Amino acid sequence: MRIGKNQKLLFIGDSITDCDRAKPEGEGLFEALGKGYVAYVDGLLQSVYPELGIRIVNKGISGNTVRDLKKRWQEDVIAQKPDWLSIMIGINDVWRQYDTPFMKEKHVCLDEYEETLRTLVIETKSLAKGIILMTPFYIEANEHDPMRRTMDQYGLVVRKIAEETGSLFVDTQSAFNKVLKFFYPAALAWDRVHPSAVGHMIIARAFLKVIGFDWEKENE
Amino acid sequence: MRIGKNQKLLFIGDSITDCDRAKPEGEGLFEALGKGYVAYVDGLLQSVYPELGIRIVNKGISGNTVRDLKKRWQEDVIAQKPDWLSIMIGINDVWRQYDTPFMKEKHVCLDEYEETLRTLVIETKSLAKGIILMTPFYIEANEHDPMRRTMDQYGLVVRKIAEETGSLFVDTQSAFNKVLKFFYPAALAWDRVHPSAVGHMIIARAFLKVIGFDWEKENE
Amino acid sequence: MRIGKNQKLLFIGDSITDCDRAKPEGEGLFEALGKGYVAYVDGLLQSVYPELGIRIVNKGISGNTVRDLKKRWQEDVIAQKPDWLSIMIGINDVWRQYDTPFMKEKHVCLDEYEETLRTLVIETKSLAKGIILMTPFYIEANEHDPMRRTMDQYGLVVRKIAEETGSLFVDTQSAFNKVLKFFYPAALAWDRVHPSAVGHMIIARAFLKVIGFDWEKENE
Amino acid sequence: MRIGKNQKLLFIGDSITDCDRAKPEGEGLFEALGKGYVAYVDGLLQSVYPELGIRIVNKGISGNTVRDLKKRWQEDVIAQKPDWLSIMIGINDVWRQYDTPFMKEKHVCLDEYEETLRTLVIETKSLAKGIILMTPFYIEANEHDPMRRTMDQYGLVVRKIAEETGSLFVDTQSAFNKVLKFFYPAALAWDRVHPSAVGHMIIARAFLKVIGFDWEKENE
Amino acid sequence: MRIGKNQKLLFIGDSITDCDRAKPEGEGLFEALGKGYVAYVDGLLQSVYPELGIRIVNKGISGNTVRDLKKRWQEDVIAQKPDWLSIMIGINDVWRQYDTPFMKEKHVCLDEYEETLRTLVIETKSLAKGIILMTPFYIEANEHDPMRRTMDQYGLVVRKIAEETGSLFVDTQSAFNKVLKFFYPAALAWDRVHPSAVGHMIIARAFLKVIGFDWEKENE
Amino acid sequence: MRIGKNQKLLFIGDSITDCDRAKPEGEGLFEALGKGYVAYVDGLLQSVYPELGIRIVNKGISGNTVRDLKKRWQEDVIAQKPDWLSIMIGINDVWRQYDTPFMKEKHVCLDEYEETLRTLVIETKSLAKGIILMTPFYIEANEHDPMRRTMDQYGLVVRKIAEETGSLFVDTQSAFNKVLKFFYPAALAWDRVHPSAVGHMIIARAFLKVIGFDWEKENE
Amino acid sequence: MRIGKNQKLLFIGDSITDCDRAKPEGEGLFEALGKGYVAYVDGLLQSVYPELGIRIVNKGISGNTVRDLKKRWQEDVIAQKPDWLSIMIGINDVWRQYDTPFMKEKHVCLDEYEETLRTLVIETKSLAKGIILMTPFYIEANEHDPMRRTMDQYGLVVRKIAEETGSLFVDTQSAFNKVLKFFYPAALAWDRVHPSAVGHMIIARAFLKVIGFDWEKENE
Amino acid sequence: MRIGKNQKLLFIGDSITDCDRAKPEGEGLFEALGKGYVAYVDGLLQSVYPELGIRIVNKGISGNTVRDLKKRWQEDVIAQKPDWLSIMIGINDVWRQYDTPFMKEKHVCLDEYEETLRTLVIETKSLAKGIILMTPFYIEANEHDPMRRTMDQYGLVVRKIAEETGSLFVDTQSAFNKVLKFFYPAALAWDRVHPSAVGHMIIARAFLKVIGFDWEKENE
Repeated sequence: MRIGKNQKLLFIGDSITDCDRAKPEGEGLFEALGKGYVAYVDGLLQSVYPELGIRIVNKGISGNTVRDLKKRWQEDVIAQKPDWLSIMIGINDVWRQYDTPFMKEKHVCLDEYEETLRTLVIETKSLAKGIILMTPFYIEANEHDPMRRTMDQYGLVVRKIAEETGSLFVDTQSAFNKVLKFFYPAALAWDRVHPSAVGHMIIARAFLKVIGFDWEKENE
Repeated sequence: MRIGKNQKLLFIGDSITDCDRAKPEGEGLFEALGKGYVAYVDGLLQSVYPELGIRIVNKGISGNTVRDLKKRWQEDVIAQKPDWLSIMIGINDVWRQYDTPFMKEKHVCLDEYEETLRTLVIETKSLAKGIILMTPFYIEANEHDPMRRTMDQYGLVVRKIAEETGSLFVDTQSAFNKVLKFFYPAALAWDRVHPSAVGHMIIARAFLKVIGFDWEKENE
Repeated sequence: MRIGKNQKLLFIGDSITDCDRAKPEGEGLFEALGKGYVAYVDGLLQSVYPELGIRIVNKGISGNTVRDLKKRWQEDVIAQKPDWLSIMIGINDVWRQYDTPFMKEKHVCLDEYEETLRTLVIETKSLAKGIILMTPFYIEANEHDPMRRTMDQYGLVVRKIAEETGSLFVDTQSAFNKVLKFFYPAALAWDRVHPSAVGHMIIARAFLKVIGFDWEKENE
Repeated sequence: MRIGKNQKLLFIGDSITDCDRAKPEGEGLFEALGKGYVAYVDGLLQSVYPELGIRIVNKGISGNTVRDLKKRWQEDVIAQKPDWLSIMIGINDVWRQYDTPFMKEKHVCLDEYEETLRTLVIETKSLAKGIILMTPFYIEANEHDPMRRTMDQYGLVVRKIAEETGSLFVDTQSAFNKVLKFFYPAALAWDRVHPSAVGHMIIARAFLKVIGFDWEKENE
Repeated sequence: MRIGKNQKLLFIGDSITDCDRAKPEGEGLFEALGKGYVAYVDGLLQSVYPELGIRIVNKGISGNTVRDLKKRWQEDVIAQKPDWLSIMIGINDVWRQYDTPFMKEKHVCLDEYEETLRTLVIETKSLAKGIILMTPFYIEANEHDPMRRTMDQYGLVVRKIAEETGSLFVDTQSAFNKVLKFFYPAALAWDRVHPSAVGHMIIARAFLKVIGFDWEKENE
Repeated sequence: MRIGKNQKLLFIGDSITDCDRAKPEGEGLFEALGKGYVAYVDGLLQSVYPELGIRIVNKGISGNTVRDLKKRWQEDVIAQKPDWLSIMIGINDVWRQYDTPFMKEKHVCLDEYEETLRTLVIETKSLAKGIILMTPFYIEANEHDPMRRTMDQYGLVVRKIAEETGSLFVDTQSAFNKVLKFFYPAALAWDRVHPSAVGHMIIARAFLKVIGFDWEKENE
Repeated sequence: MRIGKNQKLLFIGDSITDCDRAKPEGEGLFEALGKGYVAYVDGLLQSVYPELGIRIVNKGISGNTVRDLKKRWQEDVIAQKPDWLSIMIGINDVWRQYDTPFMKEKHVCLDEYEETLRTLVIETKSLAKGIILMTPFYIEANEHDPMRRTMDQYGLVVRKIAEETGSLFVDTQSAFNKVLKFFYPAALAWDRVHPSAVGHMIIARAFLKVIGFDWEKENE
Repeated sequence: MRIGKNQKLLFIGDSITDCDRAKPEGEGLFEALGKGYVAYVDGLLQSVYPELGIRIVNKGISGNTVRDLKKRWQEDVIAQKPDWLSIMIGINDVWRQYDTPFMKEKHVCLDEYEETLRTLVIETKSLAKGIILMTPFYIEANEHDPMRRTMDQYGLVVRKIAEETGSLFVDTQSAFNKVLKFFYPAALAWDRVHPSAVGHMIIARAFLKVIGFDWEKENE
């Protein structure tokens, strides 16, 4: 397990991360971590590693693109002093290109995405014990679907930056792809973006595998 | 994994099981399985075993005691023809004895609990491939606490019936106890009964261990 | 224009037809026709042919399959004595097979769909001046997508029944396909089923072309 | 068709234009264009000319007079850089004279109306490819009705300014008049101002005829 | 003053009478008489004639036609044993002919109106000390307006029945006409039917003049 | 009639005046004058004197004392430039002394009341054609009741100031007293302050008598 | 203390007793006893005599008269098998005579009140260990006030029946009178009926004094 | 009785004190004192000592710790000029250590608690006639429970400061302990913190005993 005793793990991202989390703080009582993969990761970490006392904070905000993350990076990441930082961003950067094609000022193109994300990761790297980069995803099995194809490009950028910066890398798209062999996308998400509990568990499990979580560990 | 291809797994119980599930059906779109351990079990089974096509149904109803289960057993269990049946009941049977001590007509004493639960299990046994009996629990570390002591007695009854009837047995109290070495009860549930996401994950994991779930299994 | 003076045109179908129409009556003041293609057809017919006094009634109900139409056919179609009857059904018959794959009792398979729809059309044919059969549709450009493929099969059944019974035929899928060359599906409907105003206008126009509506007609 | 590829068409006006549009932006997902004639124009343009990629923005605000437009012209028109601008204003300028006769500070008299509207059109003319001026209207068949008579005067001003400035001209009152030969006003609008779907379609069609929309055009 | 000590005066009618009255009883505390002319009549009678102890009951129901009154006459009029009965009905009988012209089953034509109203008045005449018949009205100054013309015909029927049966007669249309010389209809009612406080006071005053109310009477 | 053509009559006061009026403007469409005596005065003036075009504005605010009026006098009275000003204040000045006896900072004693009211009247006198001073009232028949006795003292102050300043004087308490011979206070107001429609009509009639209103005047 | 170990004490009455209690049961968690004197009696009994385990049930219903109690006596009193029964009724029996003087069918006159209450007490006497009769009250200091005078008559009837039947007697009016020497009624209840927390405590204390409650008793 | 004529008693604290009080003022009509022990103290003081005219103010705010009190001390205590000041604080200071163990910035440790509370008491002592210090409490019978043990330490600090400063001391924990011999904690508070009416009465009685309240005192 890479995350150590009394360390703080902060998640930042868009609506997939947000999932009705408490605001502004993003931790505490009463479902403050939201109802999505962040809460599931917390649930699994605390129940398997209660002795570690890992502090989890959710700073996702619905609708965010990497451009929005940049604006609130100082306050919502740097000032929080996380030991570990997990970033999943890019879905809205891509989606807006497809669902509101005329509002081009809302589109974050691949270049801007790459440059912004790289800058954020590099500037934060030395401040944390580790960064986990998660790809954005699209719950669509057809690789030739235009939006899936674009999403895959953004995912490749994430992989590249992870490699460049020595960050941990979570391939959420790949995790979904394995399940999509058996389920039609609509069974996981009518809009192919906001997943059901099953979809959030797929993300949580992909994340946990990368950080070395051990399901079988016994609490003594 | 004990649950096989295309089998139906039905959960029945009280508010811990219910957790805002859809009614009357208890399965389908839009968080129909609720927001608790049933949804987590579903999330983990579908994401790890998508090829099995396991159908999960939630028939929990808040406030129920075993006396209430008996009344709706024909409609909500027998008529549903589950392959697997999971029962977690008893918290309200005990709690009412402690939080409304004067309303004795609402208390389900140990004898009635044991007799009713045994009858239900026996009458259902031959209709299903398997029954999973989960103990009721109380998120209190002190074994000498009066309500915890009573809850443990009800849990022992569950264990006894499981043994008698060859049912699978999930000791949720024991699962909580391990975590309570590190967390004060209020961190999991202000009222020591309705748990946070962490508490529901503890239940889900205890359940999954008993049915042979393999977290490490690869989707291909 | 096929629809004549003082004739009644009744629409029946699912949520695409329903679109928040008034219930139970489905006509009258205050958006009683709903906010979808039925209201648009009404708007265009009344503004171009005010002298005809065409009465339009909306009997769509969200979530309906052809099995549901059958149950309410006597009351909602026969007893209404329409001169013209428009039917668009099948989306839920197909969708449930993909979004809730385990609830097989909710799936209406192709055979049942064909047989039920044919029976309804035949039994109503002699009672009305004309029947318009509209295909169900799926706002997905990829013909090899599994759900689109299934939807196309249901659409073919509609075409076949239209031909057998001399009904007018509206190919809504084809109408959408032409627009999907330029728009990604998410621009018309995040869930690929419930369209925006643009999608409803596509349906309305496809319908109106078939009944001989003349946009250029001058009101004198 | 006068509106060309990738051009932006902005509508400004009062509640007839507004119709519950999203604010402040007035375009985007989820009925952002409102539920009135602007959404209908968008629906018809996108479904017939999907290849043109016309961007439509709705900047109507309920209750506005030309005096209100003037105040927000810089922000809501000039700064939006529309290629085409459609203006329909004047109903409240007139209505307040009749429904709240004592609140004279809310009345916009004919002179102020003419001068303000002319100034706005002239100052915007060179910035856009074209301006469409729509008359205000009153859904009253009797030309001698005092408020209808006043509205007709305001409509004449619109016609005059259109001629002076080479703007396209949409005579909505005339479009309504043709339909009012067959419908009593209350069938279109209890208050003779806020029309039903039929009334909005009358406006949309009058608009589309003027900009050269071709209903019969085939999507290939 | 025609209404004597301790007598009961019952009003029946449509939304103009109803005006949010309490249901089912139509009298008592907390604005039980509604917010319209019935409450004004009560207010003026009780403040000028407190010594008479006149009991007022409101049995108006929104949307009613004379056909609806007939259905509830036994329960809402006969069984209430009023000393005085005031009837104002007919607006919806006429309005539906104009605002929903296609739903002919909702129209109450002049013949049915006359016959039904006459029957109700005759059958009630001997049971009460007096009946007051109020015309329906339409807040439109133009006598040649089609709906106003029709309303006037219904008003003439009311006058005829009043004369035949020796009932008191209140010409509400005439009362409105005098005010409409100075106010445009929209100042009293956007829809020309549901009046403002001014309109309800016009009705109340017309009613009170007919029953011999004396504004100048001194309370001692 | 003292109020002349096209004059503006402004009412200021507390909750009796306010009665859910529109804010901030206090005139216009949709019950903007509230539901109390101001609306009744408006209703009677407009229906009897429609040719005068009297503009009525309601600036009452619930809970106000004369101390509150002083704070908003410039904005809500002077700046409104009324021709006629009606003031009814003092109920809360007195009531707080009785219902919250310990919160002395909320009590407006007789001296402060007199001095403040006199100052306001004198400073406004020359700006308007006339001022109408209405006494505060308490719907209690027993003159020896402590709060009634205090209210009567405040009423005497109003009478004194009216005489000193040549203002019109409306004795609302006296108007209520006459009716209280026949009705127990609870029939007009459970709390003896916020009256029913009957109570508001008593106030309106007392006001109208003082300004020379003629109920019998014929509209021609 | 008259109430013994494990005995049940049931309160029946009108809104003063009801005070938002849970329905239908009137005991249990979450303010099930309401927010009035019944909850205060429970609070004081349980905190001073926790060892007695007294069960308290609230069966008050807002608006009830003794006529209403009679209708539900079998279900809400007899069938509940209380050891002790407390009755406080009569306020609405009197109040309706004063606040809705014309609705005579809602008035319960003194004779009917006396006869009904006596019958209920006598028929219940032998079933319970004791009955407590509380007078109705009116928070008005003036004994000559008409409604206070009537309420006192009803109170005398309660005293008489208590004496005849050997019931305990609580003079709530007298308890209020002592406090009314120092507080004006409006400080306890704007409507002189529904008291503030202070008023409910006055009732609770009067009740407790009669049943022998000892505030000074030490919990050991 | 220590509190004298016309003196002001101010309560400050957390949610136990707050209990939905009015804000910002914390006194006045309509349950302004909240629904907890402050309202009960007020109810008992006013009903037994109405002649004293004691003014009670509630300045509790939910969730407060002593750190929060410090921030608002000037405005909510000093500026209010109370004669008597009651402080009950510390529950949240302790609870956060147990229910959100990772958010250490929200924990107020014993040292900070003691120092802050002492400073506040000392700085206020000379300004008031007396200070009442109430311990925080935890409704848990087991003295060895970790959170109960911590709460007891905080309670000891309160006792110490009371002794040092000559303040009155109310041992709420001890008052609860006596009742907890007979009731399980869940009967008083599911979360062991926010008590039912019984729990608030326990606090109120403990408070009143300390200030010399005499339940048996006769009102004359």
